[in-house]
Amino acid sequence: MIDFWFSIGSTYTYLSVMRLAEIQAETSIEFRWRPFNVRSIMIEMDNVPFAKKPVKAAYMWRDIERRAAMHRMVPKLPAPYPLAELDRANRVAIIAAREGWCEAYARESYRRWFEMGEPAGSEPNISASIEKAGQKPEPVLRQADSDAAKADLAAATEQAKALGIFGSPNFVVDGELFWGDDRLDDAIRWDRQIESSPPD
Amino acid sequence: MIDFWFSIGSTYTYLSVMRLAEIQAETSIEFRWRPFNVRSIMIEMDNVPFAKKPVKAAYMWRDIERRAAMHRMVPKLPAPYPLAELDRANRVAIIAAREGWCEAYARESYRRWFEMGEPAGSEPNISASIEKAGQKPEPVLRQADSDAAKADLAAATEQAKALGIFGSPNFVVDGELFWGDDRLDDAIRWDRQIESSPPD
Repeated sequence: MIDFWFSIGSTYTYLSVMRLAEIQAETSIEFRWRPFNVRSIMIEMDNVPFAKKPVKAAYMWRDIERRAAMHRMVPKLPAPYPLAELDRANRVAIIAAREGWCEAYARESYRRWFEMGEPAGSEPNISASIEKAGQKPEPVLRQADSDAAKADLAAATEQAKALGIFGSPNFVVDGELFWGDDRLDDAIRWDRQIESSPPD
Repeated sequence: MIDFWFSIGSTYTYLSVMRLAEIQAETSIEFRWRPFNVRSIMIEMDNVPFAKKPVKAAYMWRDIERRAAMHRMVPKLPAPYPLAELDRANRVAIIAAREGWCEAYARESYRRWFEMGEPAGSEPNISASIEKAGQKPEPVLRQADSDAAKADLAAATEQAKALGIFGSPNFVVDGELFWGDDRLDDAIRWDRQIESSPPD
């Protein structure tokens, strides 16, 4: 089992969100979807990767474009960035993870954001993504805007910090942190080492 | 042919410097060693990756340790960081690149820095690394400390910036930039696409 710690709002997370179902089918590894708020961690750590860094941002979009093509994805880039409603997108994700429809919701959020140009977390993306996951938007959004949902996202973010997380996406295997879509293979290798090593 | 733009002083560059000879032998791709000063670009772009970012720095050392093990390298980590004499290390590298002994010099600089704990660019590392590459340290260092060598490093750094470079290591294939040791495979794939596509 691998914990997939992610924030809707991160650009490279698109690559992982869109291909995790296929990876899970190929490897039989179970991924647990763990949303958190990467933006609040980045601000706290003074580690905001692309805002005010135009050269790095231009590279990031080109790199995602090339890597998406490798995985036969078809984003329209650059996608609208940064997200105005990152918090709300991830508060819905927390509810979705608890209720078992997080992957469907996150995939649709990213598909609409990266492939149709609709910012995740805002309308019409957010309601359409909740609906695509088989839920009614209105009660979910009411719950997502509650103080309880805000506290849940803050608590998940504290948990992420305690694991040493500072970006998104991440793969955590038995306490070992792998950061970045490009470390998914390393995380899978780590998971297999653990599974194949004899118990103490 | 792939241009390998790098700075001695970058941590992840260790992984590339130590394995490029093997990759070149396996793939028959020629790598051109292009030293530049990544620190001055990072300061200019306000993109200093690890200083004042202890969580990210801790992750970086662990990630390098795991990836080095994958490639059967044996660093003693964390290595002394940052380097006091980054500029001098790269001024020697520029001379070495011109004269054809850059790879031998850079490998020994990193081996001593990452595997023996001797900072690159400072004594005893710098003289020992020049000697290992078959050169006499004293005249090389005299030349490296000249205004001409300083101007050469600054010019190379401007060239790197013009290519969109903001970190190290990089692989540039026909104007296409790949940043990071973990993009070496992507760069090789790109190079092969170019080689195998018919001329216009």
